[in-house]
Amino acid sequence: MPAINGKQYIDRIDALSANIWYNGRKVTGKLSEHPAFKGVMHETARLFDLQTAPETKDILTGPSEYTGNPVGRAYIPPRTKEDLELRREAVRIWATESCGMLGRSPDYMNTALMALGTASDILKGEDEQSAENLLNYYKYAMENDLTLTHTFIMPQVNRSQFYSETDGPIIGARMIDQTDEGIIVHGARLLATQGATTDELLVFPSGARLPYIKASESMAYAFAIPNNTPGLTFVCRESFVGGESRFDHPLSSRFEEMDTIVLFDHVLVPWERVFLHGNIDVNNRIYHDSHFYPLTSHQVINKNIAKVEFLLGLIQAMIDEINIGEYQHIHEKVSEVIIALETLKGLVYSSEKNAALNAFGVMVPDWKPLQVAGIYFAKTYPRLIEIIKTIGASGLVSIPTESDFRSPIGDDLRHYLQSAKGNGEEKVRLFRLAWDISMSAFATREELYERYFFGDPVRLVSLLYHTYDRSDIIERVRNFLSP
Amino acid sequence: MPAINGKQYIDRIDALSANIWYNGRKVTGKLSEHPAFKGVMHETARLFDLQTAPETKDILTGPSEYTGNPVGRAYIPPRTKEDLELRREAVRIWATESCGMLGRSPDYMNTALMALGTASDILKGEDEQSAENLLNYYKYAMENDLTLTHTFIMPQVNRSQFYSETDGPIIGARMIDQTDEGIIVHGARLLATQGATTDELLVFPSGARLPYIKASESMAYAFAIPNNTPGLTFVCRESFVGGESRFDHPLSSRFEEMDTIVLFDHVLVPWERVFLHGNIDVNNRIYHDSHFYPLTSHQVINKNIAKVEFLLGLIQAMIDEINIGEYQHIHEKVSEVIIALETLKGLVYSSEKNAALNAFGVMVPDWKPLQVAGIYFAKTYPRLIEIIKTIGASGLVSIPTESDFRSPIGDDLRHYLQSAKGNGEEKVRLFRLAWDISMSAFATREELYERYFFGDPVRLVSLLYHTYDRSDIIERVRNFLSP
Amino acid sequence: MPAINGKQYIDRIDALSANIWYNGRKVTGKLSEHPAFKGVMHETARLFDLQTAPETKDILTGPSEYTGNPVGRAYIPPRTKEDLELRREAVRIWATESCGMLGRSPDYMNTALMALGTASDILKGEDEQSAENLLNYYKYAMENDLTLTHTFIMPQVNRSQFYSETDGPIIGARMIDQTDEGIIVHGARLLATQGATTDELLVFPSGARLPYIKASESMAYAFAIPNNTPGLTFVCRESFVGGESRFDHPLSSRFEEMDTIVLFDHVLVPWERVFLHGNIDVNNRIYHDSHFYPLTSHQVINKNIAKVEFLLGLIQAMIDEINIGEYQHIHEKVSEVIIALETLKGLVYSSEKNAALNAFGVMVPDWKPLQVAGIYFAKTYPRLIEIIKTIGASGLVSIPTESDFRSPIGDDLRHYLQSAKGNGEEKVRLFRLAWDISMSAFATREELYERYFFGDPVRLVSLLYHTYDRSDIIERVRNFLSP
Amino acid sequence: MPAINGKQYIDRIDALSANIWYNGRKVTGKLSEHPAFKGVMHETARLFDLQTAPETKDILTGPSEYTGNPVGRAYIPPRTKEDLELRREAVRIWATESCGMLGRSPDYMNTALMALGTASDILKGEDEQSAENLLNYYKYAMENDLTLTHTFIMPQVNRSQFYSETDGPIIGARMIDQTDEGIIVHGARLLATQGATTDELLVFPSGARLPYIKASESMAYAFAIPNNTPGLTFVCRESFVGGESRFDHPLSSRFEEMDTIVLFDHVLVPWERVFLHGNIDVNNRIYHDSHFYPLTSHQVINKNIAKVEFLLGLIQAMIDEINIGEYQHIHEKVSEVIIALETLKGLVYSSEKNAALNAFGVMVPDWKPLQVAGIYFAKTYPRLIEIIKTIGASGLVSIPTESDFRSPIGDDLRHYLQSAKGNGEEKVRLFRLAWDISMSAFATREELYERYFFGDPVRLVSLLYHTYDRSDIIERVRNFLSP
Repeated sequence: MPAINGKQYIDRIDALSANIWYNGRKVTGKLSEHPAFKGVMHETARLFDLQTAPETKDILTGPSEYTGNPVGRAYIPPRTKEDLELRREAVRIWATESCGMLGRSPDYMNTALMALGTASDILKGEDEQSAENLLNYYKYAMENDLTLTHTFIMPQVNRSQFYSETDGPIIGARMIDQTDEGIIVHGARLLATQGATTDELLVFPSGARLPYIKASESMAYAFAIPNNTPGLTFVCRESFVGGESRFDHPLSSRFEEMDTIVLFDHVLVPWERVFLHGNIDVNNRIYHDSHFYPLTSHQVINKNIAKVEFLLGLIQAMIDEINIGEYQHIHEKVSEVIIALETLKGLVYSSEKNAALNAFGVMVPDWKPLQVAGIYFAKTYPRLIEIIKTIGASGLVSIPTESDFRSPIGDDLRHYLQSAKGNGEEKVRLFRLAWDISMSAFATREELYERYFFGDPVRLVSLLYHTYDRSDIIERVRNFLSP
Repeated sequence: MPAINGKQYIDRIDALSANIWYNGRKVTGKLSEHPAFKGVMHETARLFDLQTAPETKDILTGPSEYTGNPVGRAYIPPRTKEDLELRREAVRIWATESCGMLGRSPDYMNTALMALGTASDILKGEDEQSAENLLNYYKYAMENDLTLTHTFIMPQVNRSQFYSETDGPIIGARMIDQTDEGIIVHGARLLATQGATTDELLVFPSGARLPYIKASESMAYAFAIPNNTPGLTFVCRESFVGGESRFDHPLSSRFEEMDTIVLFDHVLVPWERVFLHGNIDVNNRIYHDSHFYPLTSHQVINKNIAKVEFLLGLIQAMIDEINIGEYQHIHEKVSEVIIALETLKGLVYSSEKNAALNAFGVMVPDWKPLQVAGIYFAKTYPRLIEIIKTIGASGLVSIPTESDFRSPIGDDLRHYLQSAKGNGEEKVRLFRLAWDISMSAFATREELYERYFFGDPVRLVSLLYHTYDRSDIIERVRNFLSP
Repeated sequence: MPAINGKQYIDRIDALSANIWYNGRKVTGKLSEHPAFKGVMHETARLFDLQTAPETKDILTGPSEYTGNPVGRAYIPPRTKEDLELRREAVRIWATESCGMLGRSPDYMNTALMALGTASDILKGEDEQSAENLLNYYKYAMENDLTLTHTFIMPQVNRSQFYSETDGPIIGARMIDQTDEGIIVHGARLLATQGATTDELLVFPSGARLPYIKASESMAYAFAIPNNTPGLTFVCRESFVGGESRFDHPLSSRFEEMDTIVLFDHVLVPWERVFLHGNIDVNNRIYHDSHFYPLTSHQVINKNIAKVEFLLGLIQAMIDEINIGEYQHIHEKVSEVIIALETLKGLVYSSEKNAALNAFGVMVPDWKPLQVAGIYFAKTYPRLIEIIKTIGASGLVSIPTESDFRSPIGDDLRHYLQSAKGNGEEKVRLFRLAWDISMSAFATREELYERYFFGDPVRLVSLLYHTYDRSDIIERVRNFLSP
Repeated sequence: MPAINGKQYIDRIDALSANIWYNGRKVTGKLSEHPAFKGVMHETARLFDLQTAPETKDILTGPSEYTGNPVGRAYIPPRTKEDLELRREAVRIWATESCGMLGRSPDYMNTALMALGTASDILKGEDEQSAENLLNYYKYAMENDLTLTHTFIMPQVNRSQFYSETDGPIIGARMIDQTDEGIIVHGARLLATQGATTDELLVFPSGARLPYIKASESMAYAFAIPNNTPGLTFVCRESFVGGESRFDHPLSSRFEEMDTIVLFDHVLVPWERVFLHGNIDVNNRIYHDSHFYPLTSHQVINKNIAKVEFLLGLIQAMIDEINIGEYQHIHEKVSEVIIALETLKGLVYSSEKNAALNAFGVMVPDWKPLQVAGIYFAKTYPRLIEIIKTIGASGLVSIPTESDFRSPIGDDLRHYLQSAKGNGEEKVRLFRLAWDISMSAFATREELYERYFFGDPVRLVSLLYHTYDRSDIIERVRNFLSP
């Protein structure tokens, strides 16, 4: 089955019946009809539909290198700089369609799997079979257009640098046994976003380096399993869908991506789905050597560009609505948004301009500008949201609901809440969007997501400090000083 | 009836049956049992109960200057610096009890009415009767321990400096007629906070200066009416009560203060309740000459101090919970909170130290430090909230609900979400509080409230520029330079 | 005479004998031996020498389109994107050689004249002769490799928006008469940087739009004259050369560019040097229509990139010197510098990627990212300098002089001021460079220069607000909202 | 000899003939006539003259508790809150007179010695004699109105947390021997401000805690010696006196306080001047137990208040000069200065309001608000200076000298540089002051001084984190959460 359409996606997820807990109950029935999931599933389906739409299909899909079938663009390895530009365009189409609000549109994880899959040779550091398993899985996912979630972080038990979990009871998931059939995994991992609404779960190392000691081997694993694998449980947080009205909750009714805690209760992962099982060295270098970070960052930053564009459009619409475009402090605020937008675009161009082929024949964008873009966006997104709040001001709490406008007091509200541009209903419609992007529980979760997407900012900055090559310019200064 | 207790408050509000619209429907039945209002009414009742509790009644109440009856402290004019300290203590007791989360605990409006009521002579600029009306109303409210709301701002139609509303149809409320019985008011005014859950509505000038032209007279009015006055409608925004569970929504289940749009449909205000009806000069100087700003700011800043204390305690509890007290960037963040707390305290002390009696025999705190405190707090509160978000990080989205903990997966969650200090339920309880103060729709409305409480920051800053006396220090510089 | 070398430059300036006042005296004798000018002239000469050096001449010069002679790269109009890249490389060579410290290396004004000269047809709006004059002057300057200064701003008399100078006595320079020989200019203009150390003075409109009234015509002029034109006076500010020792003042002894006030005392500008004389319309559109801003910004931002590289190298050298690379707050600070560097590079790439030919056949870089880069750099440079101060800390005041190290206490200082990497003399040499870039009078003037180079930040931001096309993304938001 | 006047101060310093090195030469002749020192000595003398002036002597001096003679106010221990207010007034008089520009007006070190002297009993932890020595020295200094300098920090060799100096050759000064006559000190200490222009040098522990190991004993010392003690050398940095003209350099010609490196070459400190010699425990608690920090901070913050007042006056004078008071961004900037001023005042009042007697009968201001004030001021002062730079803009480089105004072009400059308020000479006089406070080498050293006065901001913040009592408010949060 090549690149799928929306209906195929929905049917497949509805058929999975994974073990999902929401607000103290196991979820039953079709996910696509559940209030917490229907919106995002519908919107994801719309993205898949674009894969077969005449105007967009040639960008959103391309021929598989293996079968020639049309597969999702994100699954296809870029071999040239032109391929990178095509990827950029594909990401922007989906992200523009979803206002940049879907952090986990399928192209994100597809890109991740492409990065790892093309670099499967790294796993030969463990054994030939692991490498073959990963390559096979990558092909399988690509040809079947799977949607994936993943879990990247360990529970936040104790963040002291002197704390080590390995002595106590199992909390973070570990590999506790290996049998003829596969490995046995037990424990918890955090924040599988869209854990409930995808086909499969990809589990890769947590990103932290493991020490080269025996005790670490149980933490060095990687695999992929269907979401309905026995023993696997997804625990949802409270849903941030504000309600079904698109007038009242224009974003959360569509784009709320549930975050889930993943519990592994003696889960058996069959050998053909095991990519890593105990090799600390491979564990510690898989992301770096596969160029996972630059390849996925290229998707993420392009998604973020669409998001900033949406914010800029919204902000200007608000300014026009209440006619405040003459004020200098408004210019200042809008200029901050423009600066963010142009900066992100420039960094993406920079990454493409200085892209280079890696050992696996993949054209990898330059990491440095993308690393910078990641740190920059995490700092800047909250400020952009703050700008919306300062421009909206009291207009963000004078927000009656759609029901009010349909009630006997509707005409009064249309009159009394009118703006420089339209009637009260139109104004409130716009300001409810502003509220849903800046002040709803959906909005604040989006902000947290962007703030921490690339990881702890403190560590990101230290990573940049340690990896950014500047030996030549230090030399330049020393030469200047030499007597 | 002297200072009331909680039950008296609830009974009185329940009996009012004001015309309140919520989500497209007129509210019927007891307000104290309505999901959107019950929490805040219950908490307000608890504050009133403290007025008669043995440990607190001597601070929270004192003898009326008119009847000797015990009345609320906020209603009593301070005559000495010691009185100011007593007021400070009273405010802190209520604010501490409500975690600083009630912007409109009754002492706020009571202080406002005290400031205006003691200065009723200003209204003689209009006529003797208006002045007498206000004084009478002040006494009546004090002796009956009324709770009040007010509406301060005009609809946000068009914020251009060149826009004037007076030519078009009525939007902002105006005085459209005067009859034997009183004045007729028609139009809308914004954001009566707790509009539904108080006894009466106080309407005073909007704060903007009116031009001395005929057309302005219809905007120059002040009065007070019961919330159930015919023709008066309160339109609620969406409620931000997240639910009834105190585990899940520890703040919004208790402290959500509804904001309402107030519609006047040919409302008759009887003459004895009219304090101002057309005198532009009085309109423009009533706040300044009554020392309304320093007197109310003293209440507000003391409330805010209790709020910052609560944030500081919460932040430290979070740090201890996940054991991150060893990191320098954590010290930096906590120090920001401490600096805010000490700064606000210092500014309050400064205002009391340099307090002075006004023409009406009221001991008025020095406005300068309180003005500064207002500008400072509006800038700083969002940063304090941001600190909570950066410390909580992923812990703020790994938040299952009380129902989850009561379900079959409860034990797993208690285990897997454990922290350095306690089990998963205790940790989640704490982090849900952090979420409810920083990320819920309740939280963001609190942030907006604090950001704009004192008005548009741009105008506040210009006001400070124009009112802060610095002639002597300019002179000092000129002397230093004189050749 | 094609592209010159350093000696030719120095001889030509020394021969000019312009009317320059410094500290109450008219400057006499060779400028290249005067303490206030010798350093910068020597460094400029070194740049010119690179024009004939084998390794750099093919980048720094190219064939004139008119004569085929080798002329300075900045004078040559870019016709292709490759030409833009060549210009970028040329700017970087000179800027790297001068640590980015020469805001007015000759390529800046040469680029300015290239932008205006290739667009000379705009002046036909005035008359054919003016257009021809400008084109001729551009060719003449290019073929003779002239160095130029210019004066852009009017005296800072009264910055109120309601102030107009045209009624009072002449302060800002005006065209007061026209004769057979030329126009007569009288009054002052500000801040001709390197006014004393260049061949000629280019005077173009001040950038502010003139109203279309008769009185404005005297302000609508443009011309070029040799620096030794009768009636022309350059008044220097205090020199910020700290002294001749390169150990003590490594930057100010080399790169101090004097700023001068220019006084015109009935200066006759001959007609063949007059480019504009009274046409308000041309005055108001000359910069925009000639693409002056993007073309010069491309030079400036590339110069700034070399400057930031120098800062980054210096900062890392300081960190290594006192061994503080292990601290997280140091990583944070260095990452800020890296972010600035990558951001500027990305914006330049962006401008080149989206470059387009203008009506005059010149390949113009996209202005948007360069506009952003200008605003960004003006905000960021002061922060980069602050980072040096916070890293240097007390090390920036423990700075004995070269004389101290040559004195009897030299050995003690070498011992007691030693660092983790070297002896006290080496450490102080490095920290004096840090001081000279962040704390000397030279340093603060550099900071002010960068902060205001592109103009008043408040106006730049408003310009960006008004010129940045975002109609499509506002439309996108409105479509999203349409019911 | 009781409180001295200016002449007595100058004569005493001139007579000392300490071993001072400046720019590679030993200083000879009268210090009060040396270009690097004359300005600050003259200004200090003016402060001393106020001690005997009729209007100020009763505040600036008071009766010695030992002799009844009038001694400097800073030397007198505060016993009541009224005494604290008197100290505040005294500090403000001197600081106002010196525009807040003298970080080391004599009252700073006098306060330091008062704090330590009144707490001399702490030294009994070492021996009775040390305690008696300190008390005697305190009395001697007070009764003779000595001026003191001190050295607080160790050389900045290697700032890694893993670096220890004790194994290598001596760099930071150590006690290398004890004889019958006293202790022998050898090595360097940094940054004795006004090291050359005071009577004596006070050496106390560096502030860092010493480990309780034998090797630390040589670092645990305290003493006081005359500046002309044999073996003692002061090495000056480059002088930041810009010149003698008060027009050109209004601040540096008066207030430049030289920083010196202090070299001890086997210096003998006689026993009667030794206060600590090897006791690590006393070393580690002397500052805390003597309440050194709150007592000296009270002086420093009050000095800083006068400094901020001077900045505010200057800023407003600049605004008036070029008539920019109508702009909102100017209001914003001025409001920042006002906020700083009111904040510092509030924190001082707070410290006085909550002052308490210590074990030695000294009324100690509350440290918490003063700690906060110190951290706050170090962060804020650079911003205040930046505000001056952004308001001054190009006006800060269009600054001809006094000589220019006295030259043939003087009239032209008076005309062309005129402002909204006065002629060019008056405007330049004002803007040169702004330049000297924000952009001269004097200015940047002032900024660095204020930024680091209280120590490394990173450590100050950690200290605040660890010392600020907040147990009760954490408890409050926990109570709120208890189910």
